[in-house]
Amino acid sequence: MLRTITRNHIKLILSLQKRKIREENSLFIIEGDKLVREYILAGNRVALLAGKPEWIDGEPEAVIMGSDETVTVSYDELRRISSLRTPHNVLAVAEMKKRQYSDGLLHGRLTPVLECVQDPGNLGTIIRIAAWFGMENIICSPDSVDFYNPKVIQATMGAFMHVSVWYRPLEALLSGAVAEGMPVYGTTTDGDPVYDCQLGSEGLILFGNESKGISEGLLRHVTSRITIPGPPSPSAGLESLNVSMAAAIICSEFARRGSRQ
Amino acid sequence: MLRTITRNHIKLILSLQKRKIREENSLFIIEGDKLVREYILAGNRVALLAGKPEWIDGEPEAVIMGSDETVTVSYDELRRISSLRTPHNVLAVAEMKKRQYSDGLLHGRLTPVLECVQDPGNLGTIIRIAAWFGMENIICSPDSVDFYNPKVIQATMGAFMHVSVWYRPLEALLSGAVAEGMPVYGTTTDGDPVYDCQLGSEGLILFGNESKGISEGLLRHVTSRITIPGPPSPSAGLESLNVSMAAAIICSEFARRGSRQ
Repeated sequence: MLRTITRNHIKLILSLQKRKIREENSLFIIEGDKLVREYILAGNRVALLAGKPEWIDGEPEAVIMGSDETVTVSYDELRRISSLRTPHNVLAVAEMKKRQYSDGLLHGRLTPVLECVQDPGNLGTIIRIAAWFGMENIICSPDSVDFYNPKVIQATMGAFMHVSVWYRPLEALLSGAVAEGMPVYGTTTDGDPVYDCQLGSEGLILFGNESKGISEGLLRHVTSRITIPGPPSPSAGLESLNVSMAAAIICSEFARRGSRQ
Repeated sequence: MLRTITRNHIKLILSLQKRKIREENSLFIIEGDKLVREYILAGNRVALLAGKPEWIDGEPEAVIMGSDETVTVSYDELRRISSLRTPHNVLAVAEMKKRQYSDGLLHGRLTPVLECVQDPGNLGTIIRIAAWFGMENIICSPDSVDFYNPKVIQATMGAFMHVSVWYRPLEALLSGAVAEGMPVYGTTTDGDPVYDCQLGSEGLILFGNESKGISEGLLRHVTSRITIPGPPSPSAGLESLNVSMAAAIICSEFARRGSRQ
């Protein structure tokens, strides 16, 4: 007989909405039937599964066995602990993986680098794009939105399992890369058309903040400015593309060139 | 001295959240300082401006004069009538433009065609992408999300002013286009890599529903299936790209080819 969710579980889950608490406990939240199932079936253990009884009953044993603890929740309880507007049938508390960053991760591959990207949907979408095009890492400035924000995890639609997101001071990272002769592509509104630029199979692809773009301090380290050509006269509503759309287009163009080599 | 918002205004604005009421009254809602200002300064009149007194005071006369009626709202009233989580300083009620569709609109240009796209954010994003790449029209199946949905207008970030969105039965539209010798590109998961396909400067680019893709009925009219190459073995979380990301990448690839002609 499964236990029902306790007040302590609920308190823990609600507290994990906060980045600080997530980091102190090395825990984060995954929501949704498909996401939770895929996460566990990919070989990851979770600390807690809080599911509706009928969901738990319908799951393969391999999923339930992948959790240290399983409790039942009512729809109302799930609504209370969920960060989704329409909660699914299950919420899991998962453990963050401890991994060690090394600059060697950047060698021989393309890596998106995000400066102060704030919107969880944008980070989630960019993770999904990176995973699609086989990019294994994303570097974020420390002031970017947290990878473990439940909305980020949700927006990746599971792609978060395939990409490692690292938080690093970007000034040092970029200057180090340039010193090693690695190209730093910066996506700006005044660069060369991305379709005409020389694009390699190794380097950093820098994307800036949603409203401010790339800061002056980081622009100094950019070795190649690239731009998605848009309308000839930028009028109202056509000033720029959203950062995640820009990332989709630019990562696709890198992939296209790669497929030509 | 400006009037304050009345109960009838509030009733009207709240009722315009519904597609049926919008269509009966040929009215829709635009929210946000920048969007409202740009809309009026682009030469469009609005029926009502409901703004915070300090916003109205700070606007150029040309903006206020662009409205048939201007009323003041408190922050609490604005929160009540806004469909945004964080309301801005102003909400406008605008009149839909009456325009006549003709198949001639499709000639000599590229037109995205959306089958049953449901998410307002996706339609808004695709409008933004189309505008960026100079595509003047988008055709939607009648069961797609409404262009005048406030969340769609919002997600376009103003690009809705540059693209006409038409609702047409797609079966007849596609078969008509094929009969005229126009290519119908269908974005699927089993087509030829978009980077290698022959892409022209005239035709329809069909995108399917968020979860179901393009229906069998419409696939029959597709003359060229195109795919964005992804990971070699599609594992969990990497089944497909979101429709608006796919649209960004594919429209960009069409634009790249166009720039080569």
